[in-house]
Amino acid sequence: VRPAEPGSSPDPSEGSPTLVDLGEDALVDDIIGRYRSAPWLRVGPGDDAAVLDLAESFPGALVASTDTLVEGLDFRRDWSSGVDVGVKAAAQNFADIAAMGARPHTLLVSLTAPADLPAGWARDLAAGIEAECRRAGAVVAGGDLSGGTEISVTATALGSLGDRPAVLRSGARPGDVVAVAGVLGRSAAGLALLGAGPGSGLLGGLVADHRRPRPPYGAGPEAAGAGATAMIDTSDGLVRDAERLARASGVVLDLDPAALAPDADLVAAAAHLGEPDPAGWVLTGGEDHALLATFPPDAVLPPAFRPIGRVRPVPPGPDSAGPAGSGPAVTLAGRPMTGPSGWHHFHRS
Amino acid sequence: VRPAEPGSSPDPSEGSPTLVDLGEDALVDDIIGRYRSAPWLRVGPGDDAAVLDLAESFPGALVASTDTLVEGLDFRRDWSSGVDVGVKAAAQNFADIAAMGARPHTLLVSLTAPADLPAGWARDLAAGIEAECRRAGAVVAGGDLSGGTEISVTATALGSLGDRPAVLRSGARPGDVVAVAGVLGRSAAGLALLGAGPGSGLLGGLVADHRRPRPPYGAGPEAAGAGATAMIDTSDGLVRDAERLARASGVVLDLDPAALAPDADLVAAAAHLGEPDPAGWVLTGGEDHALLATFPPDAVLPPAFRPIGRVRPVPPGPDSAGPAGSGPAVTLAGRPMTGPSGWHHFHRS
Repeated sequence: VRPAEPGSSPDPSEGSPTLVDLGEDALVDDIIGRYRSAPWLRVGPGDDAAVLDLAESFPGALVASTDTLVEGLDFRRDWSSGVDVGVKAAAQNFADIAAMGARPHTLLVSLTAPADLPAGWARDLAAGIEAECRRAGAVVAGGDLSGGTEISVTATALGSLGDRPAVLRSGARPGDVVAVAGVLGRSAAGLALLGAGPGSGLLGGLVADHRRPRPPYGAGPEAAGAGATAMIDTSDGLVRDAERLARASGVVLDLDPAALAPDADLVAAAAHLGEPDPAGWVLTGGEDHALLATFPPDAVLPPAFRPIGRVRPVPPGPDSAGPAGSGPAVTLAGRPMTGPSGWHHFHRS
Repeated sequence: VRPAEPGSSPDPSEGSPTLVDLGEDALVDDIIGRYRSAPWLRVGPGDDAAVLDLAESFPGALVASTDTLVEGLDFRRDWSSGVDVGVKAAAQNFADIAAMGARPHTLLVSLTAPADLPAGWARDLAAGIEAECRRAGAVVAGGDLSGGTEISVTATALGSLGDRPAVLRSGARPGDVVAVAGVLGRSAAGLALLGAGPGSGLLGGLVADHRRPRPPYGAGPEAAGAGATAMIDTSDGLVRDAERLARASGVVLDLDPAALAPDADLVAAAAHLGEPDPAGWVLTGGEDHALLATFPPDAVLPPAFRPIGRVRPVPPGPDSAGPAGSGPAVTLAGRPMTGPSGWHHFHRS
């Protein structure tokens, strides 16, 4: 733990104490005081490392993932509050845990921030992290505070599998049902609305979903329990993550356009923005952190999942998909979705 | 995992491909290929999360810590190679695990970097991380790559306690022996030599110790086994971290100047630099990641530890030390070391 770099002056327009005004120790003490404890947290934040006694509450293999949010690239302070960024930092990591079929239980957080960051923003960040930890059933076990020229938040989530094996990306088999739990396209539509400026008050639900994604954590272990053969968190958009799962499994995922029709909010947002194709948000919009999974044909889908397609074998020939294949790994009603310029330029044909 | 931000051109003076030239996926594949596996790593990097099967190899409570290195504040690319920064990022986290009395076994790493970073630097970083993992007996389980305007490396280390309880900062008792394992002041002296420019070739060992700290990981569990009552990693310098341990334990740590005499390299570096007081490096220089521990008076110190002082009770009165005390928590031969302006301005009186 090192102090935020001193020397910068607080922005007078903020009128609130900054990290350097408050001092590292006072801020860290304040933040630590906001985090609740839990039976498995034998030693929480404040020592050299946290000590977790998982045997009783969380038996089975440990699952671990880390992800970073960077200001400017992943969030804007004029569009997202500290609480929003805290929620997002925790959510994107817990979604990765859920996507293995595991339950998240613990989070570590490292904040890098300039010395003139209002201390209130850092406290809000902690409040958002704590709120999302509660929603996920997890606790903050430790962290770090560093100086830097830009804000970045790295979280590391831990979870446990219980007595089930992990659900990897590589287990999908031809004939499996493709299903999704959680929302698709709402974060991207909310971001588009923020980019267009004020005037979309009736569509605030989309903006809220962009600011604070709500991954369906419970659906991960439920999918594992229902026999899911493969699973992935759709952090980079449905098609892109479906492609990853398909290539890892050596299969093609054929999606059903009818099952992916934009909801009324997306249609209304598209009308408001003059965007011709709200389905683009559903197919390529990232950061919803839905769970995309495949199930054996005879599986009973958990209630959180809805079917959106089928797993197909890779067609024979030089254009075949698969780990190194160049053929389409994801199709929409049997038709390729990616052109030579990549999925970014996808438009329904 | 998100792509490095595109748009910047490679520095022609580098003449080597950058992150954006190589592409995220190719770089990540290349880096993952450099990391070895281990029996407890059931699923390594490449899926949504890693899966660790610790029950057999690493029973007991789990220990977890996270720390960030930021370019400019924690390292300079003209003074440290990518390998050096990788070693340092891993070492500072593993030292925190060892300071609890635990064995490090697993590391997760998140790299934030500008798009014009030479890909070779990122590969060197991975090589340094892998090298230090091997030294510590650990493996890389996962990571993240993000775009940003500055380089920062956040690592999260996991370790296990086996059948022993954690050694906290708060357990030191009056009469205990204060002891240290590892070097003191060498990193700070190496940094001072780098700052003074070329011409200190004979003192390259100090520069090497600054670039690649070598914490004595094994000494952590050995201290726990020998009954250590408290322990801390001296990342911020002996006095500052001794103060933390003393305040957490509600005691005073009295250090023995004779046991803290600068070694021949430090004396030579001070002469070379015209620095009057090489003992200042020993007492206040950070980033050596030595382990400072306290032991019961009758304990047999593990071979890696040397005694450097005694634990004393807090003297009665308003100036007492302790968690909220204002009195000196660390003394040198019984005399206070900190003045009104704080330890940063310490000079031996």
